[in-house]
Amino acid sequence: VDLELLTQDVRAGNHRALARAISLVESGGSQGKEVMKRLFASSGKAHLIGVTGSPGVGKSTLVDALITQVRKDDLNVAVLAIDPTSPFTGGAILGDRIRMQDHTLDQGVFIRSMANRGHSGGIAIATYDAARILASAGFDIVIIETVGVGQSELAIAQTADTTILVLMPGSGDDVQAIKSGIMEIGDIFVVNKADLPGADKCKAEIVSSLELVHHPKAWRPPVVLACAETKEGAEEIWRLTEKHKDFLLESGLLAERRREKIKAELSEIVAVTARDRFLSKMNTSAHMQKLLAEVIDLKIDTHSAAQELINDLLGAQSGSS
Amino acid sequence: VDLELLTQDVRAGNHRALARAISLVESGGSQGKEVMKRLFASSGKAHLIGVTGSPGVGKSTLVDALITQVRKDDLNVAVLAIDPTSPFTGGAILGDRIRMQDHTLDQGVFIRSMANRGHSGGIAIATYDAARILASAGFDIVIIETVGVGQSELAIAQTADTTILVLMPGSGDDVQAIKSGIMEIGDIFVVNKADLPGADKCKAEIVSSLELVHHPKAWRPPVVLACAETKEGAEEIWRLTEKHKDFLLESGLLAERRREKIKAELSEIVAVTARDRFLSKMNTSAHMQKLLAEVIDLKIDTHSAAQELINDLLGAQSGSS
Repeated sequence: VDLELLTQDVRAGNHRALARAISLVESGGSQGKEVMKRLFASSGKAHLIGVTGSPGVGKSTLVDALITQVRKDDLNVAVLAIDPTSPFTGGAILGDRIRMQDHTLDQGVFIRSMANRGHSGGIAIATYDAARILASAGFDIVIIETVGVGQSELAIAQTADTTILVLMPGSGDDVQAIKSGIMEIGDIFVVNKADLPGADKCKAEIVSSLELVHHPKAWRPPVVLACAETKEGAEEIWRLTEKHKDFLLESGLLAERRREKIKAELSEIVAVTARDRFLSKMNTSAHMQKLLAEVIDLKIDTHSAAQELINDLLGAQSGSS
Repeated sequence: VDLELLTQDVRAGNHRALARAISLVESGGSQGKEVMKRLFASSGKAHLIGVTGSPGVGKSTLVDALITQVRKDDLNVAVLAIDPTSPFTGGAILGDRIRMQDHTLDQGVFIRSMANRGHSGGIAIATYDAARILASAGFDIVIIETVGVGQSELAIAQTADTTILVLMPGSGDDVQAIKSGIMEIGDIFVVNKADLPGADKCKAEIVSSLELVHHPKAWRPPVVLACAETKEGAEEIWRLTEKHKDFLLESGLLAERRREKIKAELSEIVAVTARDRFLSKMNTSAHMQKLLAEVIDLKIDTHSAAQELINDLLGAQSGSS
């Protein structure tokens, strides 16, 4: 791969180059890292919107309706649809996304599914990278759609500048969300499928529970009734997203959030790299092989062994602060 | 906490001490590690059975039926029910488990839910530790029940000696499982809710797809039709589990699997420890703060910054092999 040419094409917004570059970061190799090095300086401009919620609440349909709204304002939009790690549920979700393909002829829209292969942490890191690639390509809006199942998916949702939490009436999701403290991650709440019975009650419960949640400064998360299927509510959600963006900028919260996000991202890369180093050393280090054998023979416990292994990896570890 | 007394009580099989010890490893602190150090030598004996599948296939009901079977053979059994990381789906699953509470008065049965709090990796490590605590307490069988959603849950399922994959007719799970290569992790397949239409077809599909999957040595995974609600099939599943255990011992595969499992476990502890060290250093290291600021200002990309941070953490990193 000619990376110079590839990154040039990415910056020019070429869809094929985008797909290629994202595949490179997804595979986790050195070429992907080189791509990021070249694109990083131009990667800061897009507004990241996270859309998350349980399977079946209509996230993809809502994202589809949002795309239409964003395009009406003459902005470019890219979607990263994160497939859950589970091999069980992948199919249905991919099926839903076929709807979004109405936009495939529109050069101002780019849609990409990210599959979670390989070890934990990999998908999160690849998603951060992919979002930056899309920002470099000039997309004003990058939507990251995740199923709110599994910790890594939730972590990805939290990397967005604006997080839209999608619920539906009668699913018990609202009660679960309230119980579990998930309310704090939502900047905008959508009660989708609002034509179903119980929509108003669902909204009222969310509104009242939000009063108990600490939210930053002046932002009180709005709760919107929507019916993504008929695009009802989509315009309001898009306007609220823009309003939240302005709020983030004016309050200084955007910078604060991005700082926390990058800290989390770096810690994830450090963890994954340490794991990889350990595994590659494992096969060549006699001491590591010996420790492994001792654990198997129940002569040393895993935590004590890991401590020794880390000391091995970290050397004397005097500290560099 | 008097750890000497606590570990004594654990070894005596005291349920309250077990719950306390598991809470300590769940919280991830030094006391939990100390508990493991004391119990490790006596932790190797239990047979670990993983039960995994999509939400709603009837895992908990099946586990309940298995408990009854195990008790008929006068063996002790403990269950670790891993709650999915998602705050959305937790409720329903916890509800299902209430059924298992029929066994609460039976001293030969211990049931514990493990909730996934804190950062990724934490739940897996706590689960390995908890399984060892239960083994030390003399449980012959430890069942680890996980929802096959999310990578960490799947990883936990794979730590079992014998993995039971539960599917149901008409859910499309079988097709997904076949497509995604998940078939390889199952040692025993259960088509639960076999009274539903399509059970025979579902079984036939699994059987034929298993012919394409490489399975170790002489073990061809059996596919059992079951109806956990009426305990139909439970005895057969339990007999097959025992048969699989014998196969593992005779073929030498048990030792091989445990070796791989411990390697994965150590690499996870190394990754989590490296992440924690990074985060704690972050706040005190001037160099780390400087790098973070540079990433925020788009002057250095995350991968290059992480590389520098790792070099900081690892020192000169000469290698100890």
